[in-house]
Amino acid sequence: MIRAGIVGGTGYTGVELLRILALHADVEVAVVTSRADAGLRVDALYPSLRGSIDALFSLPEVETLAGCDVVFFATPNGTAMLMAEQLLARGVKVIDLSADFRLKDVNEWSHWYGMEHASPDLITEAVYGLPEVNRELIKQARLIACPGCYPTAVQLGFLPLIENGLIDVNHLIADVKSGVSGAGRKVELATLMSETGESFKAYAVGGHRHLPEITQGLELVAGKSVGLTFVPHLTPMIRGIHATLYALAQGKLDDMQALYEKKYADEVFVDVLPQGSHPDTRNVRGSNNCQISIHQPQGRQTIVVLSVIDNLVKGAAGQAVQNMNLMFGLKEDAGLKIVALYP
Amino acid sequence: MIRAGIVGGTGYTGVELLRILALHADVEVAVVTSRADAGLRVDALYPSLRGSIDALFSLPEVETLAGCDVVFFATPNGTAMLMAEQLLARGVKVIDLSADFRLKDVNEWSHWYGMEHASPDLITEAVYGLPEVNRELIKQARLIACPGCYPTAVQLGFLPLIENGLIDVNHLIADVKSGVSGAGRKVELATLMSETGESFKAYAVGGHRHLPEITQGLELVAGKSVGLTFVPHLTPMIRGIHATLYALAQGKLDDMQALYEKKYADEVFVDVLPQGSHPDTRNVRGSNNCQISIHQPQGRQTIVVLSVIDNLVKGAAGQAVQNMNLMFGLKEDAGLKIVALYP
Amino acid sequence: MIRAGIVGGTGYTGVELLRILALHADVEVAVVTSRADAGLRVDALYPSLRGSIDALFSLPEVETLAGCDVVFFATPNGTAMLMAEQLLARGVKVIDLSADFRLKDVNEWSHWYGMEHASPDLITEAVYGLPEVNRELIKQARLIACPGCYPTAVQLGFLPLIENGLIDVNHLIADVKSGVSGAGRKVELATLMSETGESFKAYAVGGHRHLPEITQGLELVAGKSVGLTFVPHLTPMIRGIHATLYALAQGKLDDMQALYEKKYADEVFVDVLPQGSHPDTRNVRGSNNCQISIHQPQGRQTIVVLSVIDNLVKGAAGQAVQNMNLMFGLKEDAGLKIVALYP
Amino acid sequence: MIRAGIVGGTGYTGVELLRILALHADVEVAVVTSRADAGLRVDALYPSLRGSIDALFSLPEVETLAGCDVVFFATPNGTAMLMAEQLLARGVKVIDLSADFRLKDVNEWSHWYGMEHASPDLITEAVYGLPEVNRELIKQARLIACPGCYPTAVQLGFLPLIENGLIDVNHLIADVKSGVSGAGRKVELATLMSETGESFKAYAVGGHRHLPEITQGLELVAGKSVGLTFVPHLTPMIRGIHATLYALAQGKLDDMQALYEKKYADEVFVDVLPQGSHPDTRNVRGSNNCQISIHQPQGRQTIVVLSVIDNLVKGAAGQAVQNMNLMFGLKEDAGLKIVALYP
Repeated sequence: MIRAGIVGGTGYTGVELLRILALHADVEVAVVTSRADAGLRVDALYPSLRGSIDALFSLPEVETLAGCDVVFFATPNGTAMLMAEQLLARGVKVIDLSADFRLKDVNEWSHWYGMEHASPDLITEAVYGLPEVNRELIKQARLIACPGCYPTAVQLGFLPLIENGLIDVNHLIADVKSGVSGAGRKVELATLMSETGESFKAYAVGGHRHLPEITQGLELVAGKSVGLTFVPHLTPMIRGIHATLYALAQGKLDDMQALYEKKYADEVFVDVLPQGSHPDTRNVRGSNNCQISIHQPQGRQTIVVLSVIDNLVKGAAGQAVQNMNLMFGLKEDAGLKIVALYP
Repeated sequence: MIRAGIVGGTGYTGVELLRILALHADVEVAVVTSRADAGLRVDALYPSLRGSIDALFSLPEVETLAGCDVVFFATPNGTAMLMAEQLLARGVKVIDLSADFRLKDVNEWSHWYGMEHASPDLITEAVYGLPEVNRELIKQARLIACPGCYPTAVQLGFLPLIENGLIDVNHLIADVKSGVSGAGRKVELATLMSETGESFKAYAVGGHRHLPEITQGLELVAGKSVGLTFVPHLTPMIRGIHATLYALAQGKLDDMQALYEKKYADEVFVDVLPQGSHPDTRNVRGSNNCQISIHQPQGRQTIVVLSVIDNLVKGAAGQAVQNMNLMFGLKEDAGLKIVALYP
Repeated sequence: MIRAGIVGGTGYTGVELLRILALHADVEVAVVTSRADAGLRVDALYPSLRGSIDALFSLPEVETLAGCDVVFFATPNGTAMLMAEQLLARGVKVIDLSADFRLKDVNEWSHWYGMEHASPDLITEAVYGLPEVNRELIKQARLIACPGCYPTAVQLGFLPLIENGLIDVNHLIADVKSGVSGAGRKVELATLMSETGESFKAYAVGGHRHLPEITQGLELVAGKSVGLTFVPHLTPMIRGIHATLYALAQGKLDDMQALYEKKYADEVFVDVLPQGSHPDTRNVRGSNNCQISIHQPQGRQTIVVLSVIDNLVKGAAGQAVQNMNLMFGLKEDAGLKIVALYP
Repeated sequence: MIRAGIVGGTGYTGVELLRILALHADVEVAVVTSRADAGLRVDALYPSLRGSIDALFSLPEVETLAGCDVVFFATPNGTAMLMAEQLLARGVKVIDLSADFRLKDVNEWSHWYGMEHASPDLITEAVYGLPEVNRELIKQARLIACPGCYPTAVQLGFLPLIENGLIDVNHLIADVKSGVSGAGRKVELATLMSETGESFKAYAVGGHRHLPEITQGLELVAGKSVGLTFVPHLTPMIRGIHATLYALAQGKLDDMQALYEKKYADEVFVDVLPQGSHPDTRNVRGSNNCQISIHQPQGRQTIVVLSVIDNLVKGAAGQAVQNMNLMFGLKEDAGLKIVALYP
C-alpha cells in the first residue's frame, strides 16, 4: 500500500483526490491536512465521503507528512514551494497540483504569480506532469508539477498538429470555457450562484496565468516560439472544460482524423471521437478522460479542434493520480477506471 | 461471471445500469437491447461509455436474453410484464425497474397505470426490492419489483417512526422534490431546459402513481391503513430526490436520533446524519446512499424527517444492482462502492 | 416626482429597487448609498443599469437622505433602526425592506436577530407592509416594515383558509423552497454555484427568523394562537419562492376555489389559478405577482395550497414599491406592470 | 394604436413578442395565431401573461390578419414566405423573425434551408432588419427580414473593424455561445434539461445556417469577399448569446476603444463598455441591449471582440419591435425601455 498525504484537503481538488483515492486499491490515505480544520473529521466537512474516508484533518507539518510515500499538494499557489524540499529530502515523492513548479522560467513565474519563488532550485528538477508528453520522465520523477486545467485541455488538443508542423504557430487561438469549480472553493462574490448561474462571460482576456504555461508546453513541442491568444470563459455549470482551438493550416493537410487517432491510439485517457463528432463535457464528467474531435469547416484553411475534460479530474486530481501511478510502477489507470456520470 | 442483460438500454436508468455494471467485477454485460437502435454501438449513443462498454444494441428477444443469468428491465411500464414469465421459465432471474410488479392489488395497478396487467399471476411472486425491508425475501427471489425513486426516499425516511408506532399514520405528508432525470429520457416539452431550468413547481398534486406504492409499503409496516398526502415537485437539477416528511408524534417521543441510528446501523446504504444535520442531494449524487436526518422543530408535535437519494442510483439502477447482489449471494455493495460526485 | 433614496444599494434587493424605480414614471432616484462604494457610479457595479440609472453611490448620511420624499432601506438587519427616527423627524417616509420593524414583540425580535433593538418606540408605529392585509393602514403610514419573502408567499397562501376558520391552525405546515438570491449578495461558501448548483437541501429546520414573522401574521388573522412548522429549502435557481402549504380541514369544506377567487378578486398582484393548476415560479419571475392554486388531494382532510412569488419582487423590492404607491396615493401598480420573464 | 398580429404565437420568440408588446403604449395585440391551439386563451398556455394579454389563439388566416397594421411572423422557416405577399397586398407591413427573407441569394437559401423558396420575388424587396446598419431603409420598408440571433451579435461586434478596413477579413473567427432557448420551443431530445444542463458543447461546426447570413452581412460592409469560421456552442443557461470574435489586425491600430465608442455613440441599444471590461450575458437578460468590449491581448496582432445580447430580445423579438418602431415613425426605443433582470 502506498501511504498518501494530501496537503490542503479542503479545496475542490483536495476532496476530488479523496474521492478517487478512497477507492484506489493500492493507496491508503494516511494524512489529510487543513490548517483551519485540524482536528475535525474529514467527512464532517464533506458528507459525500461518509463511509469512504475515516480520517481527521491534521496540521500541515513535515514530520507528519514525512511518513507518507507520496504527498499531494492541493493548496493555493505558494505553499508547495515552501515544503517540497524538506519532503523530498525525507524521501517523499511530491505531486503538486498548484502552479508552483509549472513554469521553468522563474522570473516569468514571479511575474504571473506575484511573489518570489521560494524554491527556485527545484524548478529544474520538477517534471511537468502531462503523461501524454512526459511519461518516461514522470516515471523517474521525485517532484511533479501537475498541469493546470486549461493547459491540459489545450495542449492535448493542439499537440498532434504542432508536432507534425501542420499549422502556423504564430497565431494560435484557444477559446476555452470552464465550469465554476475551476475557481476553487474560495469565497468570492464572482462565483456565487446568483452571479454566475444563467450567465456566460469571458474573463482575464488581457492575460491569464495559464497563458505562459500553455505557451511553454507548445513551444517545447514546436521547437520554436509560439504565439497564442488564450481567452478563458466562465460557463454556468460546475464541472467541465471545453476548449475550442483554432489554427491556420500550412499547406495541404493529410487526414487529420487518422493523425489524431494514431497519435492517441495507446493513450488510455485520450479518446479521439469519430469524424464529425462534437464532444460534450458531460461525457467526461467525473472521469479522467479527454475527448477530442477535429474539424476543418467548409474545407477552409482554419482548423478547429474541440477538446473536453473534467477540470477537477483530468485537469487536476485525476491527472495527479495518473502521475502517481506512473511514479510507483502501477497500471496507469489504477483507481481511475471511472465512467462519466451521465446524465 | 454473472451474465446480465438489460432490456431498454437507452433510457436514463438503462445507461445508469451500464455505468455501474461496467465496473462490477462479477458481472459481464452480455445483452443490451433497444428496438429503435438495434445494431448501433451502445457507446455511439452514449459516448460517456466509450472504453467501458463494448456492445451493440440488439433486439429485445427472449432467445437472446435467455442466455443471461439475470435480466434487468429498464423499460417503460407495460413491457416487463410481457416478457418476465418466459424468462423466468428459462431460468433467468428478472429485476424489473419499471412499475409492472410493484403493486400487489392488480386492480389498483390497472387504475393507476391505465392498462390491463398482462401477467397478474406473477404479481404475488414478485418481491418488492427494498433490501432494507425485504432482504431475506430478495435473496430467494426470482422476480424483483424495484421500488420507484420517490417511494424509496419516502419509505426509508418514515420506516423507523412507523414500525415503532410513534406517529399518527392517518395524516402523513411527503413533500418530495425531484431532479428532472426522474422524468426519463423522453422527449417532452415539460422537461426542456427552457421549461424547467430556473424554475420550481409541484405537479400531480391530485394523484401520482407513486402514491399507492408508498401507501402499500407503509401499510405493510404499520399493520393498518395509512393516510398519506404526497406532493411531488420538479426542481431545476438533473439528479437527486429530497423528501421532506411530516408526521404528528403520538405521545412523548424518546430519542429519535438514537432510534434511527439503531435501525440503520447495519445498513451499508442508509446513513443517518448527526443530530441537527440537513442532508444535501449533492452528497449522494452518483452513489447508492440514502442520507437521513430527523428533526422536531421547536419541540412541537410535528416531526420532520429529511431523506435524500440519487433518483437514478438508490432510486433505480443502484438499488437494482443491490438486489442482484443479494440474489446471487454477492456482497451487498459489490460494484456499488461509489463515492458521490461533489462538487 | 417623488424623490427616492435607497440605503444599501449594492445588495440584490437594492439593485432590484433600482431596476423597478428606473422605469417608474413618478419616481426619481435621488440618492443611492453604499458605504463601501461611495463615489463609484452605480452602473459601474451593475452594468445591467447602464443607460437607466445615472447616479453615484454616496455615503449613507441623514443630511443627504433628508432631501428625499421616501427612503428605502435595502440594508442588512440592524441598520434601518438606527436611522429611521431621524428621517421620519425630517418628514421623510421610510420603507424598510429589512427585518428591523417586522416583529411587534421586541423581545422576540432580539431573540431571533441577536441584538438589542435601537428604536423600540417605532415598532408600534411601523405598519407591516402586506397590502393585501393592511392596505388602509399603509396609505396612512410613515414607516413600513416590508414583509420577508417567505412570509409573503406563506401568508397570501394561508389567509383565506384561516380568516374563514376552515382549518386547524394548531398544525400548519409550510414547506417552502427558495432560489439562492434570497440569501443576498453576501460572500458565503454556502451560496457558491459549486455548492448550491445541481443540489437541493433544507436548512434551518430547527428555527428560521421568518417563523415568528409568519406566525405573528397568521395569528392576527386567526385571532388566536397558531402552531406552524416552517421548513425552508434552497433550490438551485436564482429567483423564485414556491410555498407548499398543508393544513387539516375542519368540517366539510365548501368550494375553496371560489373562496380564493373571491378573496383575491380585486387584488392586482394575487392571481388564483384555475382549478387543478400548479403554479410555476418562472411565471412570476421578475414580476410582482403571486400565483396561487388550491388542492384537496384524493378528497382527504389535508388541504394543499401552492403559492409562488419572485422573492426579489413581491418578496422584497416590488412589494416595497407597491407600498410606496399606496403611501403616495399613486395607482397601486404604478411602475409594477411587469410581465414575467419566460422562458 | 398600431394593430399588431403575431403568427406563430406559441414559440419562444412569439411569447417574447407578447411580453414586450403587452406593455408597448402604441400597440394593441389584435391577433395571435396558432394552428394547434386555436380557440385556447393565450394565457392558458403562458400563465406568465395572465393579466397582460387578453386574447385567444386564432387560426393563421389572411383574412383575420389583414385587419392588422403589422404582422410579425414568429414561425418556423418556410411559413412567412407563403403568406407575406398576400398580406403586403392588403397593405399590411410584415416583420419576419424567421429566416425566409434573410439571404439575398435564393439558391444559397435553398441550399441551407432545404426547400424551394415560395416567394423569391420578395427577397429583393425585403430589408434586412439590423437597424444599426439599415436604419433608413427600414423606415421605408414594407417587409423586414429580422436577423438571426447569432448574426446580430457577430455583426455588431465586427462592424467597426471591418468598415474601417482594420482587419484581415479572410480569416475571421466567431466563437459563439448560446443559451438553449435559441433552439426554440421544439420538443427535442437534445434540449432536455438532463441533456443540456451542466454540460457544454459545440455543434454544427461543419456548417450552420447562420454562417451565410453573417458572411452576407459582413461582405456588404467590407465590400469584398469575407472568410469566416463560425463555431456555435450550446451553454447550460436559458437566455443569452456571447460572441467571442477574433481577427488579425492589418497594420498598426489606432485606439479601437474610441473607434467603437464613436461608431455606436448614437445607438440606443449598442453599449460599448469601458476599456478592459468583459460583458456578461446576465447584464442584457430580458433587455434589447448589446454590450460590447474590445481587447488586444498582450498587444499581439489578434484582436478580440466580446459581444453579448439576449437571443430572444435583441436577437429576435426586441429587434423586431425596434424595426416596427422605425417603420411606424415611433421612437426607436418605444416599448423597449427594459432594464435587464439581474440577478
